[in-house]
Amino acid sequence: MNRTLITGGLVITAAEETHADVLIEDGRIVAMASTGTQQWTAERVIDATGKYVIPGGVDAHTHLDFPFGGTASSDTFETGTRAAAWGGTTTLIDFAVQSRGKSLRAGLDTWHAKSDAQCAIDYGFHMILSDVNESTLREMDGLVAEGVSSFKLFTAYPGVFYSDDGQILRAMQRAADNGGLIMMHAENGIAIDVLVQQALERGQTAPRYHGEVRRALLEAEATHRTIQLARVAGSPLYVVHVAAQEAVAELTAARDMGLPVFGETCPQYLYLSTDNLAEPDFEGAKYVCSTPLRPREHQAALWRALRTNDLQVVSTDHCPFCFAGQKELGRDDFSKIPNGLPGVENRMDLLHQAVVDGHISRRRWIEIACAGPARMFGLYGKKGTIAPGADADVVIYDPTAEQVMSAATHHMNVDYSAYEGKRVTGQVETVLSRGELVIDQRKFTGHAGHGQYMPRATCQYLQ
Amino acid sequence: MNRTLITGGLVITAAEETHADVLIEDGRIVAMASTGTQQWTAERVIDATGKYVIPGGVDAHTHLDFPFGGTASSDTFETGTRAAAWGGTTTLIDFAVQSRGKSLRAGLDTWHAKSDAQCAIDYGFHMILSDVNESTLREMDGLVAEGVSSFKLFTAYPGVFYSDDGQILRAMQRAADNGGLIMMHAENGIAIDVLVQQALERGQTAPRYHGEVRRALLEAEATHRTIQLARVAGSPLYVVHVAAQEAVAELTAARDMGLPVFGETCPQYLYLSTDNLAEPDFEGAKYVCSTPLRPREHQAALWRALRTNDLQVVSTDHCPFCFAGQKELGRDDFSKIPNGLPGVENRMDLLHQAVVDGHISRRRWIEIACAGPARMFGLYGKKGTIAPGADADVVIYDPTAEQVMSAATHHMNVDYSAYEGKRVTGQVETVLSRGELVIDQRKFTGHAGHGQYMPRATCQYLQ
Amino acid sequence: MNRTLITGGLVITAAEETHADVLIEDGRIVAMASTGTQQWTAERVIDATGKYVIPGGVDAHTHLDFPFGGTASSDTFETGTRAAAWGGTTTLIDFAVQSRGKSLRAGLDTWHAKSDAQCAIDYGFHMILSDVNESTLREMDGLVAEGVSSFKLFTAYPGVFYSDDGQILRAMQRAADNGGLIMMHAENGIAIDVLVQQALERGQTAPRYHGEVRRALLEAEATHRTIQLARVAGSPLYVVHVAAQEAVAELTAARDMGLPVFGETCPQYLYLSTDNLAEPDFEGAKYVCSTPLRPREHQAALWRALRTNDLQVVSTDHCPFCFAGQKELGRDDFSKIPNGLPGVENRMDLLHQAVVDGHISRRRWIEIACAGPARMFGLYGKKGTIAPGADADVVIYDPTAEQVMSAATHHMNVDYSAYEGKRVTGQVETVLSRGELVIDQRKFTGHAGHGQYMPRATCQYLQ
Amino acid sequence: MNRTLITGGLVITAAEETHADVLIEDGRIVAMASTGTQQWTAERVIDATGKYVIPGGVDAHTHLDFPFGGTASSDTFETGTRAAAWGGTTTLIDFAVQSRGKSLRAGLDTWHAKSDAQCAIDYGFHMILSDVNESTLREMDGLVAEGVSSFKLFTAYPGVFYSDDGQILRAMQRAADNGGLIMMHAENGIAIDVLVQQALERGQTAPRYHGEVRRALLEAEATHRTIQLARVAGSPLYVVHVAAQEAVAELTAARDMGLPVFGETCPQYLYLSTDNLAEPDFEGAKYVCSTPLRPREHQAALWRALRTNDLQVVSTDHCPFCFAGQKELGRDDFSKIPNGLPGVENRMDLLHQAVVDGHISRRRWIEIACAGPARMFGLYGKKGTIAPGADADVVIYDPTAEQVMSAATHHMNVDYSAYEGKRVTGQVETVLSRGELVIDQRKFTGHAGHGQYMPRATCQYLQ
Repeated sequence: MNRTLITGGLVITAAEETHADVLIEDGRIVAMASTGTQQWTAERVIDATGKYVIPGGVDAHTHLDFPFGGTASSDTFETGTRAAAWGGTTTLIDFAVQSRGKSLRAGLDTWHAKSDAQCAIDYGFHMILSDVNESTLREMDGLVAEGVSSFKLFTAYPGVFYSDDGQILRAMQRAADNGGLIMMHAENGIAIDVLVQQALERGQTAPRYHGEVRRALLEAEATHRTIQLARVAGSPLYVVHVAAQEAVAELTAARDMGLPVFGETCPQYLYLSTDNLAEPDFEGAKYVCSTPLRPREHQAALWRALRTNDLQVVSTDHCPFCFAGQKELGRDDFSKIPNGLPGVENRMDLLHQAVVDGHISRRRWIEIACAGPARMFGLYGKKGTIAPGADADVVIYDPTAEQVMSAATHHMNVDYSAYEGKRVTGQVETVLSRGELVIDQRKFTGHAGHGQYMPRATCQYLQ
Repeated sequence: MNRTLITGGLVITAAEETHADVLIEDGRIVAMASTGTQQWTAERVIDATGKYVIPGGVDAHTHLDFPFGGTASSDTFETGTRAAAWGGTTTLIDFAVQSRGKSLRAGLDTWHAKSDAQCAIDYGFHMILSDVNESTLREMDGLVAEGVSSFKLFTAYPGVFYSDDGQILRAMQRAADNGGLIMMHAENGIAIDVLVQQALERGQTAPRYHGEVRRALLEAEATHRTIQLARVAGSPLYVVHVAAQEAVAELTAARDMGLPVFGETCPQYLYLSTDNLAEPDFEGAKYVCSTPLRPREHQAALWRALRTNDLQVVSTDHCPFCFAGQKELGRDDFSKIPNGLPGVENRMDLLHQAVVDGHISRRRWIEIACAGPARMFGLYGKKGTIAPGADADVVIYDPTAEQVMSAATHHMNVDYSAYEGKRVTGQVETVLSRGELVIDQRKFTGHAGHGQYMPRATCQYLQ
Repeated sequence: MNRTLITGGLVITAAEETHADVLIEDGRIVAMASTGTQQWTAERVIDATGKYVIPGGVDAHTHLDFPFGGTASSDTFETGTRAAAWGGTTTLIDFAVQSRGKSLRAGLDTWHAKSDAQCAIDYGFHMILSDVNESTLREMDGLVAEGVSSFKLFTAYPGVFYSDDGQILRAMQRAADNGGLIMMHAENGIAIDVLVQQALERGQTAPRYHGEVRRALLEAEATHRTIQLARVAGSPLYVVHVAAQEAVAELTAARDMGLPVFGETCPQYLYLSTDNLAEPDFEGAKYVCSTPLRPREHQAALWRALRTNDLQVVSTDHCPFCFAGQKELGRDDFSKIPNGLPGVENRMDLLHQAVVDGHISRRRWIEIACAGPARMFGLYGKKGTIAPGADADVVIYDPTAEQVMSAATHHMNVDYSAYEGKRVTGQVETVLSRGELVIDQRKFTGHAGHGQYMPRATCQYLQ
Repeated sequence: MNRTLITGGLVITAAEETHADVLIEDGRIVAMASTGTQQWTAERVIDATGKYVIPGGVDAHTHLDFPFGGTASSDTFETGTRAAAWGGTTTLIDFAVQSRGKSLRAGLDTWHAKSDAQCAIDYGFHMILSDVNESTLREMDGLVAEGVSSFKLFTAYPGVFYSDDGQILRAMQRAADNGGLIMMHAENGIAIDVLVQQALERGQTAPRYHGEVRRALLEAEATHRTIQLARVAGSPLYVVHVAAQEAVAELTAARDMGLPVFGETCPQYLYLSTDNLAEPDFEGAKYVCSTPLRPREHQAALWRALRTNDLQVVSTDHCPFCFAGQKELGRDDFSKIPNGLPGVENRMDLLHQAVVDGHISRRRWIEIACAGPARMFGLYGKKGTIAPGADADVVIYDPTAEQVMSAATHHMNVDYSAYEGKRVTGQVETVLSRGELVIDQRKFTGHAGHGQYMPRATCQYLQ
């Protein structure tokens, strides 16, 4: 039996803050005890005195090795999961993509092939539905049964990922039956494409126009619309990367009616803004993602919603493209800039900084970064908490360490940091994945292939 | 000089109730005086003692000789305008239709050909845009300039009248520039078509399923969506035939923000309900229209909105189809029932009944039936009021007469009445159109061709 | 017979804009005709070519010769009504005050004594209830019957005018029965008095603290509270001098529910702000009134509400105190500054300026300044419009004249102007009161005693 | 060392459901382990196989030995705490009362005297402020420091507990400084007293009129008002016994703005209604409490708010009066019926029934009944959860047992049950208080005096 003991730390979960020792056997947490009260022995003892002992992060929205706009995101499953581990995240849920005209199965197989034996940490898959039809609707049932229990649809990107309202309604109806959770990229892409074309015709080609044409009202509109479609279908709904305060208001209104409507935001919407998109010398391209960054004054609504649970999850939407060679594809046309930001390594730290800044409590930090996403996507019990029976995905977190975020020191495979120069308090010190040391005192001790594919249960959030 | 004098009546406009004599010269009102104070003489003197003297009604939403579902509405411009006159309406605005792939001009020419020399009362045209593209967008400017200043778009009827959100946005942008007013049929037709197909697959073919699949939430959704698109375009918006309380709530919210968003409802939504759609023996088909009739409890929201000006206009959406031979096309499939109700003759009386019932004041009756639509669609000054300078479109209305609505006695060319057997208080006695007697003591004295085409100014509602 | 003819002007009412001649006989308007069409003769002919012909203003909220804080407002009924006439206002409704422990009748008698034979224009009275009890509740019925049909209550000024919620409820119940309209000064005076005392204890004695302690939230709170009490009582409610956007929101919400709740704002809230209260050298005292001026950003909500009829009336709350000797009473203690501003002469011009600035239409100008208040307080038909049968209270208004507001030129008996130096477009040229020239080409030709007391009907607004 | 081991149960907390053994030493939980993985020994081993192991309930709102209306609530601290234990509740927070004109200290001393050595379970005190003045405001600081960190104010009961808005504002300001939490009985008592008197004058004396005069709008009004006062003061607010859906809407709106506003409801509002108040033969008197029971359709809003955390706590407001001799005091006058219901024994079971009925999840059951109130009132860490370091207040709960609620079998000292005959699934089997068996397999094994007074920290809810 392989035993590890973590002693003396402050164990923080979504619900509790306890000075406790944590006993790990064979990759699972088996017991917890008030510090020093039990005479436990173990092969490995980690002294967490003065540190936080927290669940490994669960990042429910990443795009590794993701084809987009004629290129692909720059992190592979190997580099991306390693960077995640560095940042205290021990579970990813990435997006497998159905190609138009192909089956869901074919898409899922492709993503298994990309990730098999590559990952440093555990991972699961959502499925992007690019083509809702009788055949793919039937396939959904099987995927839910085998552990791919969430499906992403887009009201944006006409001609690529876009589904019309009828397809969305059908997928929601199917999900209402089979227990799947519909995830929505909510922006009115049809209207946005008109505005894009008009902007380009006016010679407005710089990155900041990406933010201007993707109007906040058009995010809110699609949010409202898909909430109504979900009501018609009788299905729950999870809106990804919520950025605009008007979209938050739609989610809040839905929640006030008691609807099973959920939302996620991302660190970039909490810390970055249209000011970044307007940076000169094409630097703004680094911040091009969709939904786009919003003016700074939208941030207060996001923080409020995170505090009162109108938003339940913070994911990264990690989708990195190098500035050189990739972002540069759109130098003369913002619509050709690959959409996406790196961030999988920064999320836990940025949200700890939110604790330091007083935006959220420590427990809420763990809830939105670990427990919430685990529960939302059927991983709870194993992931997202520290409790007897859970997987021993544990982070020893130093709440007083200071660090400066930078491409020079990060581990993501991308040539810039969206948070270059940002000083934060708190740092990951040691990371265990199912009891194995992946990061040990800020050295990477993991390896590609340790991470296992995780079939997921259906949404546990409302149970 | 042709002079008519109306004496002794209570002149009611949107703003005033005055005991006054009204002097008409050469088709226009030239003077008003406190009853009996001026010694006016005239060729024709009409004694209106004990009666109301009101502006002729303006019905801003009719479909005469309208091709739909393989048939055409049963009233021609001749029969429809005659029936309108019987009902105290002296101005219609009908919808010219662009055929897909054809120009707006071609559609407008067709409608002029249908109506020339046929009408008993004055009329104008809105234009239905079936195909928004560069060419038709350019044509809009010319039509506004020549007096066709409002354009109807549909989020319903995919494949027929449906425009996508990008087309809607473009048309709104153009209207924001040229002063045109966008009118919207707001129902999510893409989602509804899915529900229609599913209902039919379940064998739900009866008329009442027409109401069930066209969900109130999907009317509210499209209302919300097109309001947001109008905000993005910076254009005003007029939503036609509002039926659902949830849609009223969207209009109310827009108005609370001060947006130039307007709405119309119709008598059928105020007086009929899904109870009618559920009438046995296919009788429900008589009440099939879109937006559909709603459950009775929606009516209170419509009355409230009419009182507080969140709805500004009551039109008929008059679009009659005979039960025999026309409505029957959908005996085995509700989706094949031609959509539409007769009503052009009933509107003024039904709204007077609303006065009797205490829903609205007498002045509000005139505002929503005469002055409001005239102002909304650029006819004010000439139509919709009784004031020096206005066209002498005047109705002598007996507020105490009792009548029973019935196909046996109505003048619309359709074999049933949507209000068969309904007893109301109040009746049109005499109608003048530009000073000419069209109805004289409940005899039709008008003739086809008296009615003139009215080029319209742009929306005067916000001036 | 005394005949006056006004020719060639643009007659503007709440509903119409007509080029018409207006014929006046024996103090009433008897006829209107399209310009030049009738060969009317008259003793006096006023050429209004190029001018507006509008109804005389109705100012529904003035305090002439009003005792407050140990002094009295500086305009008597003679000086105040003369200044009103200069400003194009031909009807005032002033507030008679019940003294605590005395009858309503005694208060009303006092105000009749102050005003009899003093007024240049017609006037009526509201009654301030300082002491709601069985006896005064009974008296209300009689006052309504004799033409004092509106009653003002205060949630502010504890110990002076304040009524508790039980008294308010009782008065509302009585009004629901006898047709009276309850007017409300809505600020939470009990809480404000705590904040006043605390501010003074901190040495915050300057005028600007008057605005700071009378928190916008406490205006909104009392607005909400009294709306709920009116719902419980089943009575309508009219909230006076609405200043805060949060209070507007409460009225809007009430209206969205269809409640008979009305609101008035005043020019000072539309044009002045806390910037004025903060003027140095005690100049801020000139702008001390309650409800207080709000930060500039509240103004947009007021304009919006005026446009969409969530506010129905603009009155002045004219209550002038001279800076010297009166406002100075509070030099060391803002709570001792008499509350009130002059404005009765400026209202029509300031609201015309709002037309020039694009905030409202010309017709809406007349509606909120003339027709609306007349209808709200039972004077419509006689006052507030130009129509056969109405009193010949008519203003010839020059829409292109320019003027600069100033104490040096105004006619109110007060040593400062709240709008000193403000340049506006538009000016009163001639004023008739019941057909008599009161202002003739900018000369005062009226006299004290011309103005008659007007018994009023009950609220006509919802008829 | 005194060790107890609970084996084999499903441990449920607000956040986790874990099959775990729980080890207790010297009255505290020291360790938890996956079932059967640790070879722990203990003096006492409790087999919880097939049972739930949950934290003891925390009832934050009881009135034991409470003087009201000339009588006193029928449960003493001895009988009331014993009944609480029977119902699975191991902590009470009762209300000490300041008498008007006396100090807070005197009131607190009285309540300590009532409770010392009487209680079967642990308890703390809130303080009712009957008389807010300079002296009592100063006393508040000391009470917070010594562990009485919450203060109840009333907008109801004029002349008894009522505070005016100025007193409320002052108390809130003080609490904002000293960390105290203001609890509010929110009903407009001034207006209600008017309605009470009017009802009695009309001869409406039966219990059901208690519900009719205490209008839902007047609960919502006071809720809104005190929220605004808390905003002005910058303090948090906790509204007790929320009953009306309109009041829920006010709390929801506050929460949507991110305000630190909290609310509690009680089982009677979730399960009983005005139907009970209308029971014949004066039986309705059993259900007289304030806020009153509402019509059944209000319950959905309460359940929704409990699910989405717009309400955070379910307490009992346990305040029993015997039907015979006590409730009967109001046989001829509902206003003389002592206000209050028994319920301290029923809460945990009724909320488990809500789990069975699908209203809430198991974890939410524990959150609203144990963890939430503990955190709200500064007891978390010790009370409200099962975690290393917490007090060993543990309930073994049989989720499949069936019981029928009845006065014949309950342990509260009152001659009726508000839930007589109600059949529920789930029952308390065994209860530990700080490790001591208080209920052992449904036998009472505790004793008066075991329960200790608990000084409390300040509100931990937002930490």
